[in-house]
Amino acid sequence: MKKAAVPQSVKTVGVVGAGRMGTPIIGHLVRKGFATQVCDVNAARAGAVKALGANWIASPESLAAESDAILICVGFDREVRELLAKGSPLRRAKPGTIVAILSTVHPKTVQALARETEGAGLQVVDSTVCRGGEAADNGTLLSFVGGSAKVVERLTPVLRAYSSDVVHTGGVGTAQVAKAVNNLILWACLVADHEGLALARHYGADIEALRRALLISSCANGPLEKWGSQTMAWAEDDMAIVAEMAAEAGIRLPQAGVNREICRTLKPRRYKLDLYGR
Amino acid sequence: MKKAAVPQSVKTVGVVGAGRMGTPIIGHLVRKGFATQVCDVNAARAGAVKALGANWIASPESLAAESDAILICVGFDREVRELLAKGSPLRRAKPGTIVAILSTVHPKTVQALARETEGAGLQVVDSTVCRGGEAADNGTLLSFVGGSAKVVERLTPVLRAYSSDVVHTGGVGTAQVAKAVNNLILWACLVADHEGLALARHYGADIEALRRALLISSCANGPLEKWGSQTMAWAEDDMAIVAEMAAEAGIRLPQAGVNREICRTLKPRRYKLDLYGR
Amino acid sequence: MKKAAVPQSVKTVGVVGAGRMGTPIIGHLVRKGFATQVCDVNAARAGAVKALGANWIASPESLAAESDAILICVGFDREVRELLAKGSPLRRAKPGTIVAILSTVHPKTVQALARETEGAGLQVVDSTVCRGGEAADNGTLLSFVGGSAKVVERLTPVLRAYSSDVVHTGGVGTAQVAKAVNNLILWACLVADHEGLALARHYGADIEALRRALLISSCANGPLEKWGSQTMAWAEDDMAIVAEMAAEAGIRLPQAGVNREICRTLKPRRYKLDLYGR
Amino acid sequence: MKKAAVPQSVKTVGVVGAGRMGTPIIGHLVRKGFATQVCDVNAARAGAVKALGANWIASPESLAAESDAILICVGFDREVRELLAKGSPLRRAKPGTIVAILSTVHPKTVQALARETEGAGLQVVDSTVCRGGEAADNGTLLSFVGGSAKVVERLTPVLRAYSSDVVHTGGVGTAQVAKAVNNLILWACLVADHEGLALARHYGADIEALRRALLISSCANGPLEKWGSQTMAWAEDDMAIVAEMAAEAGIRLPQAGVNREICRTLKPRRYKLDLYGR
Repeated sequence: MKKAAVPQSVKTVGVVGAGRMGTPIIGHLVRKGFATQVCDVNAARAGAVKALGANWIASPESLAAESDAILICVGFDREVRELLAKGSPLRRAKPGTIVAILSTVHPKTVQALARETEGAGLQVVDSTVCRGGEAADNGTLLSFVGGSAKVVERLTPVLRAYSSDVVHTGGVGTAQVAKAVNNLILWACLVADHEGLALARHYGADIEALRRALLISSCANGPLEKWGSQTMAWAEDDMAIVAEMAAEAGIRLPQAGVNREICRTLKPRRYKLDLYGR
Repeated sequence: MKKAAVPQSVKTVGVVGAGRMGTPIIGHLVRKGFATQVCDVNAARAGAVKALGANWIASPESLAAESDAILICVGFDREVRELLAKGSPLRRAKPGTIVAILSTVHPKTVQALARETEGAGLQVVDSTVCRGGEAADNGTLLSFVGGSAKVVERLTPVLRAYSSDVVHTGGVGTAQVAKAVNNLILWACLVADHEGLALARHYGADIEALRRALLISSCANGPLEKWGSQTMAWAEDDMAIVAEMAAEAGIRLPQAGVNREICRTLKPRRYKLDLYGR
Repeated sequence: MKKAAVPQSVKTVGVVGAGRMGTPIIGHLVRKGFATQVCDVNAARAGAVKALGANWIASPESLAAESDAILICVGFDREVRELLAKGSPLRRAKPGTIVAILSTVHPKTVQALARETEGAGLQVVDSTVCRGGEAADNGTLLSFVGGSAKVVERLTPVLRAYSSDVVHTGGVGTAQVAKAVNNLILWACLVADHEGLALARHYGADIEALRRALLISSCANGPLEKWGSQTMAWAEDDMAIVAEMAAEAGIRLPQAGVNREICRTLKPRRYKLDLYGR
Repeated sequence: MKKAAVPQSVKTVGVVGAGRMGTPIIGHLVRKGFATQVCDVNAARAGAVKALGANWIASPESLAAESDAILICVGFDREVRELLAKGSPLRRAKPGTIVAILSTVHPKTVQALARETEGAGLQVVDSTVCRGGEAADNGTLLSFVGGSAKVVERLTPVLRAYSSDVVHTGGVGTAQVAKAVNNLILWACLVADHEGLALARHYGADIEALRRALLISSCANGPLEKWGSQTMAWAEDDMAIVAEMAAEAGIRLPQAGVNREICRTLKPRRYKLDLYGR
């Protein structure tokens, strides 16, 4: 039977995008013994990639042909679509190749790409990562993965190379939904933490002592625990996706609407409590 | 020396207000061996109080005269002020009596009362409690306490009777600031959790599975962990204090401003995700 | 019959508060032939008041005794209450004296004072003024007045001295409701105008030409017409009253909640479009 | 010289889109003597169009070839781009043909299309319309028009056929900026009017009397004047464009962020004050 020809175990992993998240993921894949192929539009990253023990591949076409699974770690929705569009590089992948989208994009983008590449035999899933850059460095990311149980099972050893937790969230697109919700709440908490601590500062509180006390209280939250470490690099893009999803769902999310606007100008002055709300 | 006459150790504790928080606190005080005197405007509570092993005292005047420390557990700013106003019941307390305000009120209310009662020899401190009713039942509250080190030291054994954590936040009023900040962030998180999960629901997510996954992600927060258990009983009063504090501080807190409005109508339909944002 | 003794026509008008609104109102009253008595806590205003042809009265007590109608033009809720509290100056007024509260206060404050002073024979009404300082100078204010038809009828000639429009809004308190709603919408418009024009500025629009064009479009609004002239002196106090009213009504006003926070820091940088949203 | 061959006066006008705005515009063009060609993807509109005295053209290609100026009155950004994309119908227009985009789209969409069609000799301008359907019926629209002075001059007689006011806002794209700002403020006012009147309703005010009074006060605004007549058909799409523009400009517009969310669910219950904020 033809199906039996599909490789049951992933040995060669291609990674498209060697940025802040891709790079440590590449390191973990190499260390766990995966033959790791990497390409990036920025050729200057070749040295760092090779130093990690991965192969630098000049083009996504070549990478596609040689991989059992491909992890897409690019920054934008548009880039993801271009990689998988009709006639595009990743369409050259062998039938049965898993294409995992780690980038944060709209759930519908993933679902559309999964449908469109079905004929070519690609197995598109979304496999979003949470917990940020430090967790990527430590291989302790949380991976949400959305796809059929069979594909997720094959992909899981790859995800475990860099994730201490892997959660199968449901069908294709659901990992993006989970990531979007995570982001919505994450940035809401960071804004709330700024508002609360900025207020406390005006009343003369010892902010660091207060922060530690709040961490054992009912309002404890992730960004308060990691206070000072967030770059907010993607906060606004995250909230733009949330806004689009809320519009499609036809529901009103007033706090998220305000948070999106606040994040825009909070980013360059994050953690500077004396500037908040001035 | 007169100072030497001040009782160094608190043996008799008066509690004004035997409501949702006061009642379990009374039970813990009795169990820890404090002679516990209780009064409440609602005489119907006498039975429950006596069943816990405390003495029911008809009036705050009598309670004041017999207590080494008094815990005020009433609901509103106005009630606290009436208890400590000129010519009021608690002014009858012996010099050196500690009056700890557990109620959530404006920091300035506590500071004004501390100043006004100084002449009468009262030691007014604020000693706010976090973590909610269940923690009160279990004696695992977090107490913030604001006052001089000396007074806080004398009061700490009392607080430990019902608190697994006691944090000295600074001078008088700072425990209210800490509580206000806790509340601001707490309700912000609860609103964000509703917005995030309501959005997920529209995309067909398994909400309970998602919630558990988010608890190990970067957006983890207290109200998400205790999802389903908040009564939001005081959410709006909490946010009214926050609004007043922000106005006085002269800073803009747009997320808190929206959260206050959202909390108002969220309370009766909390945790009903199908109604959120409709 | 006693009722027949009530003066049918107001000849002597007392004004408490000679500030930005009170002063031009005094001028108009004098010009229209009312014997005008004025007091203000700030004795430095005596000269300006006398220059307008009014009598300077040292205390509200004396003023109360000699007036057929008293206009209260002070700044704060607290001041209004102190003027009319039990044993307070204005309780010395003759039975039948109309006391019109022009200050912007909570509707319930007016209603409570009307009830409490009924026994003393005072006729407390609320008579709020809209359109701002320039309209006060020109005698073209809009007066909302809340009270019984009979009292309003007697007061109307006084109001017409400085108002080109007088609207009887209903019973006592309704003029404050009308003023609060006016303020809510007024500040909302001013914020929206800032947001819209700040956005246009980033796209290189000629702001003054655009503003004039918008004034003949569907979004035309008062603050856009008077762009550049608002001091926003009372904006935050106005929005604090709105917030309290919304809380009492049990309704959610998310835009007003955000506007209150925005107004706080917009005031010192109003009309500076390059600073908005930065 | 070739340039001299460009028709100096527009005689034949093509209209793409015979919807709520396009249809009355067609009527005015016919009445003013323009030879009017119309097409619409919905063939069912042919009858109504012919009844107005215009020619029904089966395809945009044919329409393009025969028109001196073309008015695009379709609903969405995507439709506008498809009409003018490379190889698309309107690229068949004669060199020198004016293509006026009446649809509300992002300013950058218009600017990109103007650039891309320059080679084909098309004169793309944006010519947005304000004041709504009733003004379209009456020929009293306000037209903002963005483009070179020369093109705008040639187009103006066409615009005057259905607009009582024509404002030249600047270069290509500026009419979209003006429209976006108009929309931002328009929907802000409508939300504020709902919040204000809903609050008044809870305090027992006579809403219609209050509304009339507010129209002569400082908070007067367009939507309050036309209370009850707005369909809010495009409110959310309008606010999505505003959100995108604010993100690109890098400025924070918190009120607009909240208004977008509010508009989403206000639309089906607009003017129902008893439901607002519940």
